[in-house]
Amino acid sequence: MRALSKGSNQEPALLGTYTRVRERTESICGPLQVEDYVVQPIGDVSPPKWHLGHTTWFFETFILVPHMAGYSVYDPNFNYVFNSYYEAAGARVIRTDRGNLSRPTVEGVYRYRRYVDEHIEGFFGSGEIPGEVWALLELGIHHEQQHQELLFMDIKYILGHNPLFPAYAEKKVFDAMRVSPKRTLSFPQGIHRIGHGGNGFCFDNELESHLVYLDAFGIAAEPVSNGEYLEFIRDGGYGDFRFWHAPGWEWVNKNQIKAPLYWHLVDGHWVHYGLHGLEEIDPGEAVCHISFYEAAAYAAWMGKSLPTEAQWEVASEQINWGQRWEWTLSAYLPYPGFKRAKGAIGEYNGKFMVDQMVLRGASVATPKGHSRKTYRNFFQTDRRWMFSGIRLLA
Amino acid sequence: MRALSKGSNQEPALLGTYTRVRERTESICGPLQVEDYVVQPIGDVSPPKWHLGHTTWFFETFILVPHMAGYSVYDPNFNYVFNSYYEAAGARVIRTDRGNLSRPTVEGVYRYRRYVDEHIEGFFGSGEIPGEVWALLELGIHHEQQHQELLFMDIKYILGHNPLFPAYAEKKVFDAMRVSPKRTLSFPQGIHRIGHGGNGFCFDNELESHLVYLDAFGIAAEPVSNGEYLEFIRDGGYGDFRFWHAPGWEWVNKNQIKAPLYWHLVDGHWVHYGLHGLEEIDPGEAVCHISFYEAAAYAAWMGKSLPTEAQWEVASEQINWGQRWEWTLSAYLPYPGFKRAKGAIGEYNGKFMVDQMVLRGASVATPKGHSRKTYRNFFQTDRRWMFSGIRLLA
Amino acid sequence: MRALSKGSNQEPALLGTYTRVRERTESICGPLQVEDYVVQPIGDVSPPKWHLGHTTWFFETFILVPHMAGYSVYDPNFNYVFNSYYEAAGARVIRTDRGNLSRPTVEGVYRYRRYVDEHIEGFFGSGEIPGEVWALLELGIHHEQQHQELLFMDIKYILGHNPLFPAYAEKKVFDAMRVSPKRTLSFPQGIHRIGHGGNGFCFDNELESHLVYLDAFGIAAEPVSNGEYLEFIRDGGYGDFRFWHAPGWEWVNKNQIKAPLYWHLVDGHWVHYGLHGLEEIDPGEAVCHISFYEAAAYAAWMGKSLPTEAQWEVASEQINWGQRWEWTLSAYLPYPGFKRAKGAIGEYNGKFMVDQMVLRGASVATPKGHSRKTYRNFFQTDRRWMFSGIRLLA
Amino acid sequence: MRALSKGSNQEPALLGTYTRVRERTESICGPLQVEDYVVQPIGDVSPPKWHLGHTTWFFETFILVPHMAGYSVYDPNFNYVFNSYYEAAGARVIRTDRGNLSRPTVEGVYRYRRYVDEHIEGFFGSGEIPGEVWALLELGIHHEQQHQELLFMDIKYILGHNPLFPAYAEKKVFDAMRVSPKRTLSFPQGIHRIGHGGNGFCFDNELESHLVYLDAFGIAAEPVSNGEYLEFIRDGGYGDFRFWHAPGWEWVNKNQIKAPLYWHLVDGHWVHYGLHGLEEIDPGEAVCHISFYEAAAYAAWMGKSLPTEAQWEVASEQINWGQRWEWTLSAYLPYPGFKRAKGAIGEYNGKFMVDQMVLRGASVATPKGHSRKTYRNFFQTDRRWMFSGIRLLA
Repeated sequence: MRALSKGSNQEPALLGTYTRVRERTESICGPLQVEDYVVQPIGDVSPPKWHLGHTTWFFETFILVPHMAGYSVYDPNFNYVFNSYYEAAGARVIRTDRGNLSRPTVEGVYRYRRYVDEHIEGFFGSGEIPGEVWALLELGIHHEQQHQELLFMDIKYILGHNPLFPAYAEKKVFDAMRVSPKRTLSFPQGIHRIGHGGNGFCFDNELESHLVYLDAFGIAAEPVSNGEYLEFIRDGGYGDFRFWHAPGWEWVNKNQIKAPLYWHLVDGHWVHYGLHGLEEIDPGEAVCHISFYEAAAYAAWMGKSLPTEAQWEVASEQINWGQRWEWTLSAYLPYPGFKRAKGAIGEYNGKFMVDQMVLRGASVATPKGHSRKTYRNFFQTDRRWMFSGIRLLA
Repeated sequence: MRALSKGSNQEPALLGTYTRVRERTESICGPLQVEDYVVQPIGDVSPPKWHLGHTTWFFETFILVPHMAGYSVYDPNFNYVFNSYYEAAGARVIRTDRGNLSRPTVEGVYRYRRYVDEHIEGFFGSGEIPGEVWALLELGIHHEQQHQELLFMDIKYILGHNPLFPAYAEKKVFDAMRVSPKRTLSFPQGIHRIGHGGNGFCFDNELESHLVYLDAFGIAAEPVSNGEYLEFIRDGGYGDFRFWHAPGWEWVNKNQIKAPLYWHLVDGHWVHYGLHGLEEIDPGEAVCHISFYEAAAYAAWMGKSLPTEAQWEVASEQINWGQRWEWTLSAYLPYPGFKRAKGAIGEYNGKFMVDQMVLRGASVATPKGHSRKTYRNFFQTDRRWMFSGIRLLA
Repeated sequence: MRALSKGSNQEPALLGTYTRVRERTESICGPLQVEDYVVQPIGDVSPPKWHLGHTTWFFETFILVPHMAGYSVYDPNFNYVFNSYYEAAGARVIRTDRGNLSRPTVEGVYRYRRYVDEHIEGFFGSGEIPGEVWALLELGIHHEQQHQELLFMDIKYILGHNPLFPAYAEKKVFDAMRVSPKRTLSFPQGIHRIGHGGNGFCFDNELESHLVYLDAFGIAAEPVSNGEYLEFIRDGGYGDFRFWHAPGWEWVNKNQIKAPLYWHLVDGHWVHYGLHGLEEIDPGEAVCHISFYEAAAYAAWMGKSLPTEAQWEVASEQINWGQRWEWTLSAYLPYPGFKRAKGAIGEYNGKFMVDQMVLRGASVATPKGHSRKTYRNFFQTDRRWMFSGIRLLA
Repeated sequence: MRALSKGSNQEPALLGTYTRVRERTESICGPLQVEDYVVQPIGDVSPPKWHLGHTTWFFETFILVPHMAGYSVYDPNFNYVFNSYYEAAGARVIRTDRGNLSRPTVEGVYRYRRYVDEHIEGFFGSGEIPGEVWALLELGIHHEQQHQELLFMDIKYILGHNPLFPAYAEKKVFDAMRVSPKRTLSFPQGIHRIGHGGNGFCFDNELESHLVYLDAFGIAAEPVSNGEYLEFIRDGGYGDFRFWHAPGWEWVNKNQIKAPLYWHLVDGHWVHYGLHGLEEIDPGEAVCHISFYEAAAYAAWMGKSLPTEAQWEVASEQINWGQRWEWTLSAYLPYPGFKRAKGAIGEYNGKFMVDQMVLRGASVATPKGHSRKTYRNFFQTDRRWMFSGIRLLA
């Protein structure tokens, strides 16, 4: 999840948003122990302290360094530590080595945040700031919101793969999404406009807005539930090659996949790790932590299809979405007329437009105000540590 | 490359086609030494004798065994050796172990071909054969034609990676494709029908024919030439991250890619391995053996785009195509209404519809009569041992 | 480094030793930040908090659980977390996953230590304890001392591979070992007894004491210095295959080894990471952090040999040893008459007697009182994160 | 298996030996199909045509090129193809790529052999040849004999891992070694001389002859039989960690080892692949194709030990040896006084003296006249495609 902008900032309000978003990031980390901030159990999962530093580095590198006269970099070594993937911004720690770094300490990272926050607030609070620098601030805020969701994903992975299964919080962190009785919605054939066309903020990958032709289609009003998915498991779905793509079948067998991520079969019934500990599977809740391979296999077992991202966007006003990212049958490719921005910011989205699939919607872990119907999320076909689910065409 | 049918066979003629296609396969192997039939330098490349056996196994397994009364299998062990990827047809040699098998010998595989040919000819030559069995024969013929192209790809790889660079033939095997002065073609916006709609044979992945909306676009009448591609190389294209997708940039660096496959820099100028030995690069010929990553990087360097498969198909009547497979900006995904066939044959195409990109057109190595404008070829983004090139939008 | 005993405990004093050794372990960790306790940059290096827990688990598992009536296990999950390699003691975290565990926290591990210490002290302080249980206590103490040295090795690796090169301490942690002018010692041919024969504690791998015949030999009184080793580097020793074993040559080329571990070439001169930060190489100090491959290559370059462990032990009274582990030309194999103990404790040493070489002596990081001339340390030929050096025959 | 000499050649007879040994190599390959000469199912196994070329390259490179005036190299590319591991002789095909080379053809390799044979015979048949060049001829002959045994090992692997289990010959290739009723031999303590001391040919690794002290020991007169080894299997030896070294236990589990190489459990009883096809296990024959890990585990299960190479050599006059290489408890390390020769020939043995164990004796596949009691064979601890067995101390 990464972004670039089509500006919409309302400048006076933005600085307040900045402060609230920065605080929210830290409050997400509030329940963590120092040790939880440090580890990286798999390459995809970054240590929470790295997220705290990286989002800060983003503001420092793309706003303070080039635009604030006399700004003094907090620590020149931090560029090496906290650059994620920007080739234009220089060498960096190999992604899978992030969990090998005990320093800077958590406290040191929080000090870094204070320093950058003070400078951002000072800089934007006084004097004439050009519109394109305000746009960078807005982009940085959205970027940090993306990392808020990544924090939930990564914290869940870190705690959910610890043999002690420690709780992040004492009670449910997210409200359960109860899936109501099944309804199907129908849409006639026609030409539709998709992509972002309004004035609000969007990432560059939502542009350009363009026309698509769609045949008539039906789509489920609700995502697939745990109970429905359990029938697939009980019917032997994970053991029958006919439902799987060839690389999906390899993935299932090589990794001995038997159920969604975080599910465990204990004494013959399924439990899963939620952020407040292990608990029973609720059959009425939307299924979560599903890879594209699993979503496609479930659809094949049902004799149905996943929607394309165009179908999804057309239907989005009438379906119930927002608690699970929903896999689509669309590859993550540029929209007609897509252009990469100049410089390091141009690496935000465009260079990932290959070998991934689009997910639409939002999840329980998505920050308030960070979702819209044109939003394009994307992951490789075997990934499932995000809060991803399934919606089928009728 | 794999297929399934929408029938079109004209039954009396098909048996003659069968004989001619089977002979053609063997004539492709005519110049080989026995040793050349055996090796497998990388997992993607199969030993030529495996292709000879596998195409034969296809006719035996899907026609003779289920439909010819009293047929006696040639050798029950061959199913294990020559099954490619059909889970429904049982266990098989791991793909990367094909080159470890010295037996059956080349002569033994030719005997197997004789045996199956006699039975196919006897079976179809006498008596009442149901239409769907004729359809399987037609499918098997198209399947063998696909392996004819794979034979050229794999033979070139085997000989072209031998330190002695032995020639397959004394003179040029394929006519050079000379790229004429650049023209651009324009197409207005509108709704178009793509996919296979007529009566002739097609694979299942070309179905269903359906409508798409396209904005106005321009497209080059000719593919990119060696000379044009050399400018990209000389401009440092392989060393500049800005033109590459993130995984493409990793691929370039990990594998130290500096030029298309088969190119070598000798004493400061580029030569390449053609099937008749090493020779100078001809700047006027269409560039070949290009991965998707390279095609996309070249397009980015030019500030242009690859066409989608719908754009390509709409333009196909007016452009010069057929000597290089052309990478498109479309992922290999099912068309609306696509259905997998029942049984092993249903594994032909559908299970590969993920993590690959579509190539359109045909190449110099494609058998006569095996190409059509709706044909969907597909490979992973890093593959380039097929005869693949680049066409750009204007 | 692991052990088993031939008892020597003087029971009343042992409990005091226990307390002092346990405190020493914690004082080694004193300068660490919480984050430093958690990471595992390579499989060989364990997180410091794991060492703290594992040594505690050893006392709990092998003494309190089987021998103390009514003992209540601190946390049944800890066996899974803190078992190192004892198959007999049940399943355990994969070694390379130790650094993925943020829980138990550092504070939690210290609480575990308190609990076990109190029970050990209570148990041994009151009542009749059989001799073989005292022997287990002595073994556990020696085991913890081995982990004290591992702590120094692992802490150095963690901090020395951090891009910020943080200091463990402000001043030198270990006194430099100055190598004095070269002397050679001569030993006549004869039969010698080696291995542990006295009454003091030893590990099982030092038994049985036995006779060996040695030809006359000469040996250097001092280990090789940094200055001498620098000549090997400057003479191109790392780039000349003639000095290397075949797998050593592969190791050098694959890992681009150019100097001992922790050495960096900065602006044309060599510095190394010591526990108090980066500093200049001192040519007069003994070279350190050397693999067997490097030791053997250096010897080959000098036209000399490494001593066998028997030669080393015979010479040990007259040479200057104790600040670097010294590679020998002896493989780690059982002495004549060696026997594995019954049960889990029997896994301590015997199962590692293959594919490793013996190092003799001790290092600056070896705890006081934990070295003797018969001690057999052992590592694989490519390892060098221990404090290892080189001594040559004359 | 590789070598260097302490000369013993009787010059007039040597040329006749040369011719006979060269013919024997080709007669070993007589039963092969062309395809069998080409494949390399694992890195350790070389294609038979590679052996034919490499042994020829050895004579060309180390005798004809440096010593025969006016000699014209057969094909300059062959150095790249047929150099095994001599760094001093230049770049070479990566070992694991030998099986990817279809050219030169088998017939081409035989032509190469003819050419070199004619030149060797012409060169040594006429004129004054210095003694050290005769010594190289003798070394080359012993080298080729080593490859004769490798040919049997590799041919057996190639055919024995083919799913068709083709026979190399119609009847038994090697006489079965029947193990007679168990006897034990005793040797008193004392000082013994081991290593090669006489005038005959030996490899450099058998030098220098030197003294060793041995305690009294007993040793089995016969190697372990299939029947005895079956008891270990039936007792669950492959599933009980207590008998295995730690890396052996990993090897067993990772590779799911259940029995010696070439053994298959068919309908509840054990068969094995011999060169004439699959056959029942003969309980009275010596067990074969055993790794060091298995030999050591068997010994542990019996509560006994493997002999050291010194014990073996001292006992060699009285035990029954010669049909299985016998694992010893000695690592492959240089004898006291060992010196590498200058130049490429110096790479023959010395650079492998690390990370391997010594095997003593000879096997059914060892050429006549190529064995002696001081011969030191060596392999890594997990290898077992050589004809290796087990002998125990009493």
